[in-house]
Amino acid sequence: MTKPEQTRILETFARLDHERAHRTGIPEAVFAEGKTAPQIAALLYALAEKVGYALATRVQPMTAAQVVDELPKIFNTSYNQPGRTLVTSRPDYEPKSTGGKIAILAAGTSDIPVAEEAKVAAEVMGCEVLTFYDVGVAGIHRLVQPVEDILKQDVAAVVVVAGMEGALPSVVRGIVPVPVIGVPTSIGYGYGGKGEAALMSMLQSCAPGMTVVNIDNGFGAGTTAALIANRVVQAIAGKR
Amino acid sequence: MTKPEQTRILETFARLDHERAHRTGIPEAVFAEGKTAPQIAALLYALAEKVGYALATRVQPMTAAQVVDELPKIFNTSYNQPGRTLVTSRPDYEPKSTGGKIAILAAGTSDIPVAEEAKVAAEVMGCEVLTFYDVGVAGIHRLVQPVEDILKQDVAAVVVVAGMEGALPSVVRGIVPVPVIGVPTSIGYGYGGKGEAALMSMLQSCAPGMTVVNIDNGFGAGTTAALIANRVVQAIAGKR
Amino acid sequence: MTKPEQTRILETFARLDHERAHRTGIPEAVFAEGKTAPQIAALLYALAEKVGYALATRVQPMTAAQVVDELPKIFNTSYNQPGRTLVTSRPDYEPKSTGGKIAILAAGTSDIPVAEEAKVAAEVMGCEVLTFYDVGVAGIHRLVQPVEDILKQDVAAVVVVAGMEGALPSVVRGIVPVPVIGVPTSIGYGYGGKGEAALMSMLQSCAPGMTVVNIDNGFGAGTTAALIANRVVQAIAGKR
Amino acid sequence: MTKPEQTRILETFARLDHERAHRTGIPEAVFAEGKTAPQIAALLYALAEKVGYALATRVQPMTAAQVVDELPKIFNTSYNQPGRTLVTSRPDYEPKSTGGKIAILAAGTSDIPVAEEAKVAAEVMGCEVLTFYDVGVAGIHRLVQPVEDILKQDVAAVVVVAGMEGALPSVVRGIVPVPVIGVPTSIGYGYGGKGEAALMSMLQSCAPGMTVVNIDNGFGAGTTAALIANRVVQAIAGKR
Amino acid sequence: MTKPEQTRILETFARLDHERAHRTGIPEAVFAEGKTAPQIAALLYALAEKVGYALATRVQPMTAAQVVDELPKIFNTSYNQPGRTLVTSRPDYEPKSTGGKIAILAAGTSDIPVAEEAKVAAEVMGCEVLTFYDVGVAGIHRLVQPVEDILKQDVAAVVVVAGMEGALPSVVRGIVPVPVIGVPTSIGYGYGGKGEAALMSMLQSCAPGMTVVNIDNGFGAGTTAALIANRVVQAIAGKR
Amino acid sequence: MTKPEQTRILETFARLDHERAHRTGIPEAVFAEGKTAPQIAALLYALAEKVGYALATRVQPMTAAQVVDELPKIFNTSYNQPGRTLVTSRPDYEPKSTGGKIAILAAGTSDIPVAEEAKVAAEVMGCEVLTFYDVGVAGIHRLVQPVEDILKQDVAAVVVVAGMEGALPSVVRGIVPVPVIGVPTSIGYGYGGKGEAALMSMLQSCAPGMTVVNIDNGFGAGTTAALIANRVVQAIAGKR
Amino acid sequence: MTKPEQTRILETFARLDHERAHRTGIPEAVFAEGKTAPQIAALLYALAEKVGYALATRVQPMTAAQVVDELPKIFNTSYNQPGRTLVTSRPDYEPKSTGGKIAILAAGTSDIPVAEEAKVAAEVMGCEVLTFYDVGVAGIHRLVQPVEDILKQDVAAVVVVAGMEGALPSVVRGIVPVPVIGVPTSIGYGYGGKGEAALMSMLQSCAPGMTVVNIDNGFGAGTTAALIANRVVQAIAGKR
Amino acid sequence: MTKPEQTRILETFARLDHERAHRTGIPEAVFAEGKTAPQIAALLYALAEKVGYALATRVQPMTAAQVVDELPKIFNTSYNQPGRTLVTSRPDYEPKSTGGKIAILAAGTSDIPVAEEAKVAAEVMGCEVLTFYDVGVAGIHRLVQPVEDILKQDVAAVVVVAGMEGALPSVVRGIVPVPVIGVPTSIGYGYGGKGEAALMSMLQSCAPGMTVVNIDNGFGAGTTAALIANRVVQAIAGKR
Repeated sequence: MTKPEQTRILETFARLDHERAHRTGIPEAVFAEGKTAPQIAALLYALAEKVGYALATRVQPMTAAQVVDELPKIFNTSYNQPGRTLVTSRPDYEPKSTGGKIAILAAGTSDIPVAEEAKVAAEVMGCEVLTFYDVGVAGIHRLVQPVEDILKQDVAAVVVVAGMEGALPSVVRGIVPVPVIGVPTSIGYGYGGKGEAALMSMLQSCAPGMTVVNIDNGFGAGTTAALIANRVVQAIAGKR
Repeated sequence: MTKPEQTRILETFARLDHERAHRTGIPEAVFAEGKTAPQIAALLYALAEKVGYALATRVQPMTAAQVVDELPKIFNTSYNQPGRTLVTSRPDYEPKSTGGKIAILAAGTSDIPVAEEAKVAAEVMGCEVLTFYDVGVAGIHRLVQPVEDILKQDVAAVVVVAGMEGALPSVVRGIVPVPVIGVPTSIGYGYGGKGEAALMSMLQSCAPGMTVVNIDNGFGAGTTAALIANRVVQAIAGKR
Repeated sequence: MTKPEQTRILETFARLDHERAHRTGIPEAVFAEGKTAPQIAALLYALAEKVGYALATRVQPMTAAQVVDELPKIFNTSYNQPGRTLVTSRPDYEPKSTGGKIAILAAGTSDIPVAEEAKVAAEVMGCEVLTFYDVGVAGIHRLVQPVEDILKQDVAAVVVVAGMEGALPSVVRGIVPVPVIGVPTSIGYGYGGKGEAALMSMLQSCAPGMTVVNIDNGFGAGTTAALIANRVVQAIAGKR
Repeated sequence: MTKPEQTRILETFARLDHERAHRTGIPEAVFAEGKTAPQIAALLYALAEKVGYALATRVQPMTAAQVVDELPKIFNTSYNQPGRTLVTSRPDYEPKSTGGKIAILAAGTSDIPVAEEAKVAAEVMGCEVLTFYDVGVAGIHRLVQPVEDILKQDVAAVVVVAGMEGALPSVVRGIVPVPVIGVPTSIGYGYGGKGEAALMSMLQSCAPGMTVVNIDNGFGAGTTAALIANRVVQAIAGKR
Repeated sequence: MTKPEQTRILETFARLDHERAHRTGIPEAVFAEGKTAPQIAALLYALAEKVGYALATRVQPMTAAQVVDELPKIFNTSYNQPGRTLVTSRPDYEPKSTGGKIAILAAGTSDIPVAEEAKVAAEVMGCEVLTFYDVGVAGIHRLVQPVEDILKQDVAAVVVVAGMEGALPSVVRGIVPVPVIGVPTSIGYGYGGKGEAALMSMLQSCAPGMTVVNIDNGFGAGTTAALIANRVVQAIAGKR
Repeated sequence: MTKPEQTRILETFARLDHERAHRTGIPEAVFAEGKTAPQIAALLYALAEKVGYALATRVQPMTAAQVVDELPKIFNTSYNQPGRTLVTSRPDYEPKSTGGKIAILAAGTSDIPVAEEAKVAAEVMGCEVLTFYDVGVAGIHRLVQPVEDILKQDVAAVVVVAGMEGALPSVVRGIVPVPVIGVPTSIGYGYGGKGEAALMSMLQSCAPGMTVVNIDNGFGAGTTAALIANRVVQAIAGKR
Repeated sequence: MTKPEQTRILETFARLDHERAHRTGIPEAVFAEGKTAPQIAALLYALAEKVGYALATRVQPMTAAQVVDELPKIFNTSYNQPGRTLVTSRPDYEPKSTGGKIAILAAGTSDIPVAEEAKVAAEVMGCEVLTFYDVGVAGIHRLVQPVEDILKQDVAAVVVVAGMEGALPSVVRGIVPVPVIGVPTSIGYGYGGKGEAALMSMLQSCAPGMTVVNIDNGFGAGTTAALIANRVVQAIAGKR
Repeated sequence: MTKPEQTRILETFARLDHERAHRTGIPEAVFAEGKTAPQIAALLYALAEKVGYALATRVQPMTAAQVVDELPKIFNTSYNQPGRTLVTSRPDYEPKSTGGKIAILAAGTSDIPVAEEAKVAAEVMGCEVLTFYDVGVAGIHRLVQPVEDILKQDVAAVVVVAGMEGALPSVVRGIVPVPVIGVPTSIGYGYGGKGEAALMSMLQSCAPGMTVVNIDNGFGAGTTAALIANRVVQAIAGKR
């Protein structure tokens, strides 16, 4: 894709908001669902040019291959298959680590894609991310190690991803003194099986200090956790 | 209420099924909601005469007082206020203990009424009932004692009553080798707050070995648990 | 699949809980939906090595063929096509019959897959299973034989599988003195046709002594029934 | 209420359709919910003057007393308390029996009000009505007598009223060669307890030859059954 | 398919109820959704042998071709493509006309498949069927001719099929003195677009004398209408 | 209420937006539900002082009496009881007629309150309002006169208020060349009876040129119709 | 397609209503979903012959190509791919501009198809249409230019298309003195993600002067806006 | 209430978890709904004795007066009427300010009770709280001042409370670089009017960096915001 092609595609359908990271602390990302590979590529290209890097979410493997083809070869581009995220950056772009730190837990193996989306989103914002997968409530002993690490490493926020009955975030929130962001997933079956059971459970949970995002919204959870972590780091820096 | 009055009231609206205990293992009970005190009294009177005793559920305190007044003074009648149950028996009736044993757990203090309804129903069926209240998942350490007792006393089935996010039955089921009957309650607020969240969670739960009854159905859970416990006892008796 | 391959696959996404049968009375099973054939094979392999045997549910025919290919040839592996279950065991594993006995009824021919899932699950737990299919309420005379058998054979629990209006479990429960576990299926159409009508009916049913599992959850119903049956047998053994 | 008062009240809010019985075979009735006693009285007065008689449904006892007071004393007025219906007629009006015959069954004692509304509506249309109450599926043996009567008396249509899981109409339809009209009632609790479970079950029912009306719509069911019965009678008369 | 093949297939999954027509006035039909062509053929074969003819509904075109292949060539078999129904009969079977007469209206062109299913079902039961399609409420003048025909031909019942907002049955019911059976269809879009809007409208309709069946249930509506029409005819015959 | 009292009350909870009429063409109104009489009075007082007049909706009769008491006696205040609206104006305020003209139809007598709310709102905006009540689809002949008047008087928009199955707006829209605004009301019962059936029907309606507002939102419909009518008048004025 | 072919196809399934434009101000359009290419072509052909032109909505690209093939080559036919609309006209047909003017805003790039459907519908009715796409609330500064244009160009109505949380119409309505028609789209995910969130938001919106159509109903919104705009123009013409 | 009385009441129904503040960063609070005044008093008494202070939420005014009567007179007790919260503390307890700072915005005057609950909860946790009420999106200019204050005062988190269409949190999140916690309220009417519209909108919102709590859950939002604010302060302290 040449620069003029990119411009032409963009003009037909979109208005970029590359000031968003500055204004809100979270960069604009490309939601790939329902977009063609050239559209995704054009948006990533334009954003990366302005901001240095760009992230697309919900990119199917086959689309990802096409997008990679369309992007300039000198860009650094990587695709996270389970998380279906695609990150690209200008050759001169140096990713900055903010020093912020978060943790992400996933209840079942089917919840990993959403957790990985959250992870990539937080990393793009400069945070370090600890991950603990397959630690659902059916075997609560598996939570011991993650909780110890969360406490020791002093993470600023914890993202907990769970489908089915969605009980994990409440349990985690009950044992760590850190804000928890629950992400219900569309993993389940029968009554409440498209994520409603998990969403409802998390909203009903008796554990204050926990908030939620919509079903499967790994990006929203990861960026919010990173926003909190980055604020903690900035506050320290500001006061030093 | 005289015998003829009782007969006359009954004839206008109901057909008793006093063979039900024999046929299904669980006696017919009077669901008091939407019935007048004389109707409830007439039904209890007729059932107690045939079977020896009778149980009414969902009896509001004021109605209960009226029903007690209507029943023959020589009957033994007692009202469980939190559980809103009313039990009456003929003077010559000897309650039989079957030797069956079950446990009932309630997650929050607001779940106690439903738990008590389950307890009375199981006791009427001759079972011994262990109760553990206010043991919700927010403070999981509070579960230690109940679980030890359940294991030590070798109960045949456990009823777990929970509203809000309804996570307790799954957690309990994950640590005891006994069938668990979950009872969602209509305790909650906002999205899913009339018991749907709890019901959905229990149905979605990844813990096999757990089944559920409808929201607030303490009677159904208590009688099913007692049915299981009584079968265990009968089996032993039959093989001895 | 070689042992090292199996280990490598497992490490990337799952933590086995092979103590579960001991702790809860029901062995861990592999829920195949959303997993690849190598993942399913790796999990079955590892579980069978530890426990002697392993069960996977919701395995599509084509996936099943692949999984069978991946498993060691010396394992005994069998696939139940209507029930979509796959069972494998170490060559030295001797299946143990516990002596527990249950019955499974299916209302319509479309409900058979869920019933078969329940059957395999209960058999894996060592129970004997009586099945009666296509005995829906539209022709109630077809229930006579099954009920007689249930009473004569003294089964410990009955699983009743039904879609559409889901009336069969209530009717069965009204005529046998045994706990009934209702399994609503996603068979139906129009309003309430994805299993909600059947689920609601079973939860509303006026028949105490009946509990339910989620829509299409044959595994949950079969294991719970087997858990009850096995407890009855253990109780007898313990008292002898 | 004098004639001028009646006229004045009517003019402020309603337009009567006293030709409806002629056009559609079912007379206009007054749905009393949300209307004041004077409004109900004025409507009944005007309809009875034109047509000879008039029916109001959903009249609360206290309102009924007021309406009776407002109507001319020479009118014949009667109130059916369980059914909450009020019928009035001009002194010169002779109710005509059409010879049509229907049956009404109610599953539980709480379903009787809806059944009585259906009964009065069908009687107002000149039909003979057989009623059988408290014959729910929990004790199916109670259905034997009603079914025999239905077959012997050759009724033209059967109305079956049921709340909770709403299984009775399907069962009845499966054993009588007569169209069945199911009326779900708002009797129930928890999930599906406002009549949705009963409505869904009836719509899902595998029994062709059964149709339904909305929850608690006794009037709609009674009038439809009477319309069918009257058509049968007219057809016979026409061919004689 | 040979006779032994047919028997073998049937034995594995189904129990026929060929007495149903006698008991309930409506013959058993084969609901083809979810069944294989050999299963459908075996069921049709067996039913036609016993009863003379047999009907299958919801048969996709490609499945229909396979079923026709499997059935004995000497049977008379015909497939109604829009209605997706398949009727077969023994060579010696003489279809009997009962003399019953019904009408079927469809609101839009997309509602025709459901209307055709109703039509075939009623014809199989021996009724004459008048059809009027594309007569929706958006152009009410198109109703004039159908209504005149309905009145002149003295049909016993009218089936009205409508999707979207489902207003047609109420309008029709308001102008003909005949029972109306409303069939909501799954034609629509957005909020309420899977037939819920049409179903709700019909249930809420202020027009008494109208009942409904579930979404897309042409078979249920057609057979009920035919049951009414046949009863009218029988009544006349009985009295002559 | 003195001026200082009014100010003090306002300061504690509200920020007026008295420029709204200028900016959007519709004045700010006070939604009284959930507000105390002094709060409503203070808001009306402040708005009337700035703008000349003010309107409150959903004012219960008893609250209305209190509000009237609190308002300055020299204000002109009137309460529309069926519509539960309260209008007040400064003594020097001259209501201006814009010349805009709309029509409002109500299907049933129970829909009149919502229709009256719409009427008052449109009148406050200076429009002339034609009303036609109790003209539901059950007696379509009652529509003839209203439609003639609508066409003759050349109204700019029509508001159609209907509960139950909500069919009236579609029917009206099909016969007048004027934009129709449908207002579903919460009049109904059973499935869809809180206004969902009416709302769904209107949204599904096949009649383009019709839009809707939320259930019972007479104010929204009346002001939108008046906005359209006033624009037509302004356009004429602007071009003259 | 020859004329006789067209006639034959039409006769089998549809009745045209080519007087609709005259009666209601909006021409009949062909809703292509669920229709075959020959059916669509036949309908367009017949309508264009009578009225001069014809519009089909929801035409998939591949179907569109087939329809174009079937239509007479001398007709002027054009397909709008994003909007999936197809317009055809007789060679002698002169499109008339009414002078009416509306604006259409789309919140996100995924909402453009629905916006384009609205645009084509309004243009077919002779209106001029201003479009502003990708102006969602996340970057409210992007609204400045559109609002200025709307005010300056004096449009008669504004269509605002938005999915996800659907907030744009309310915001727009709060700053322009013009009626706003909100169109929720089925763009979204998780809870409320099929357009329910957007629809609910728009119905709940506190902004009077806004009405809505069903999810994805661009045609309904575009035609209603054009109807308003054309009325304004006619009013001016009438008064000149 | 004497100490022994308090102990006796507590023993009958509750198990306190006074370690919760230490373990999770948020103290246990008493949810008063469904509890009697003596129960609330006993819980507050016990908690305040252990921890120094205690908070009850959802305390109705009349209950509050009774609770105040029951608590020791030497305790400092205050009731926030709009927020329905009750705070009590031991005479020797010194409230500690942590230095954390948050902001709370409420869209409408009816949302203030929920906002006040959030405020009291955050203050109890030692935070300073800026409040801005009645700043809904209908008059977006009213947001200018709050946003400036939020930026200048460098708050750590913002709670935004909104009912109806719930758009405010997204708008706020789009203009401040701070995590936003949305609280939907049950303020609304018609479709989605019990808070579902607001909840759905917030979950669908395109603004990352925003999370939500359940409908009306002011306590959950206030404590989460305070938890974040306190972590920021602790982080600074820890690094100094």
